[in-house]
Amino acid sequence: MKKTKNPTACIIIIGNEILSGRTIDTNKHYLCKELSIKGIDVIEVRIIKDNIKQIIDTVNQTRNKYDYIFTTGGIGPTHDDLTALSIAKAFKVKLIKNKKAIQILKKYYSSLEQPLNKAREKMAFIPKGSELLYNPITKAAGFRIKNVFVMAGIPEIMIAMFQNIINKIKHGIPRISKTILVNVPESIIAKDLFRIQNQFDEVEIGSYPFLQKRKKGVNIVLRSKNKNQIKQAAKEIRNVISSL
Amino acid sequence: MKKTKNPTACIIIIGNEILSGRTIDTNKHYLCKELSIKGIDVIEVRIIKDNIKQIIDTVNQTRNKYDYIFTTGGIGPTHDDLTALSIAKAFKVKLIKNKKAIQILKKYYSSLEQPLNKAREKMAFIPKGSELLYNPITKAAGFRIKNVFVMAGIPEIMIAMFQNIINKIKHGIPRISKTILVNVPESIIAKDLFRIQNQFDEVEIGSYPFLQKRKKGVNIVLRSKNKNQIKQAAKEIRNVISSL
Repeated sequence: MKKTKNPTACIIIIGNEILSGRTIDTNKHYLCKELSIKGIDVIEVRIIKDNIKQIIDTVNQTRNKYDYIFTTGGIGPTHDDLTALSIAKAFKVKLIKNKKAIQILKKYYSSLEQPLNKAREKMAFIPKGSELLYNPITKAAGFRIKNVFVMAGIPEIMIAMFQNIINKIKHGIPRISKTILVNVPESIIAKDLFRIQNQFDEVEIGSYPFLQKRKKGVNIVLRSKNKNQIKQAAKEIRNVISSL
Repeated sequence: MKKTKNPTACIIIIGNEILSGRTIDTNKHYLCKELSIKGIDVIEVRIIKDNIKQIIDTVNQTRNKYDYIFTTGGIGPTHDDLTALSIAKAFKVKLIKNKKAIQILKKYYSSLEQPLNKAREKMAFIPKGSELLYNPITKAAGFRIKNVFVMAGIPEIMIAMFQNIINKIKHGIPRISKTILVNVPESIIAKDLFRIQNQFDEVEIGSYPFLQKRKKGVNIVLRSKNKNQIKQAAKEIRNVISSL
């Protein structure tokens, strides 16, 4: 691997409904793809419950290990939305009524001619020292505290928040990726892939087998920041394939 | 929550290609759903890289915390398949050529009139003290060591292995779940949901908001082992809704 290091990230998906298998989470995949495009390497994803202790532990286990932490879910108005409170506890700061957040909500609900009830007000309680992440859709803000970005769980809102964040943080060098599809079992080319991997230390060669109507095939994926190395490694792999 | 405790589980998805956003993992959702049906509570999912240190750390951080650990991915024949080696290191046991596993592979490849080359043989190297998890499709076995079940990443094979496992392990009491869809913002019913949640301690009430054409709605999901409690809680919630 090349010596210049990309920023690293961990994604934390918060939600009982995902762990029970009721809901298919799509935020994780979106974030992995978009961060990858910006050269930010996602090293780990964790999916956890709406549980104060688990949120605190997970955030504290990861936030010093990675450059960025992105969380989704649990910042709404109901009893099971525990993320803001848990993040405050993780950072040992108070959960305070954020003036700016409350202003935004007041304006929004008065434009809808609806009251700012207690449940809605709850969404303006944010850990002290946070910066707001604006929500152009339903207005209740997410927040950033240090390197932790706390976003909504509803995909449309999460995406809107993320698009505001992504160009304000440090990017890395995106990896170029090249896929070579081969309709043979990977066990036939494993030895050559091993040799080629050792030859190109700036290229990460992944071998992703699949079954199609029970016939084995493999996608060989080359990933690197170095275009030239990918080209050469791909050439070597094609030589192997044509000699089969 | 009821006092009888269900077995707990953690799912570990291993694969660079998922973290880079190239591949959408479907194993996680399948496992969450199937375990839930059997009353095994998935408390956490982790998605990590094909990296020896990360696999060791993740397995050792979780295996004493949950009743069952299920891993998928990284047990194939290529250089980037590092799971078996890492699990052996996590348990501080040797990675040995498993006699039964090698027999199965020999038979399979001789039936295909193909050699059992070194890459294929690699798939029979399994941590000492493991029990094999049979693979009816491509024959290379997964394995169980203590409470850790190590399965393939290819969904068809993972499912076949899992179906062999699931009826041999301890089940819990599956939670019954009931969904009430309401076309109002959750902030309108948040106060009542809070009250009803406090009233029914055997029911987990989840509030899952959504946007449809920018209009807010919410799925209220009630989950419990106790059918009667769900019925009563649902009735209370319906009363609230009809009074809106």
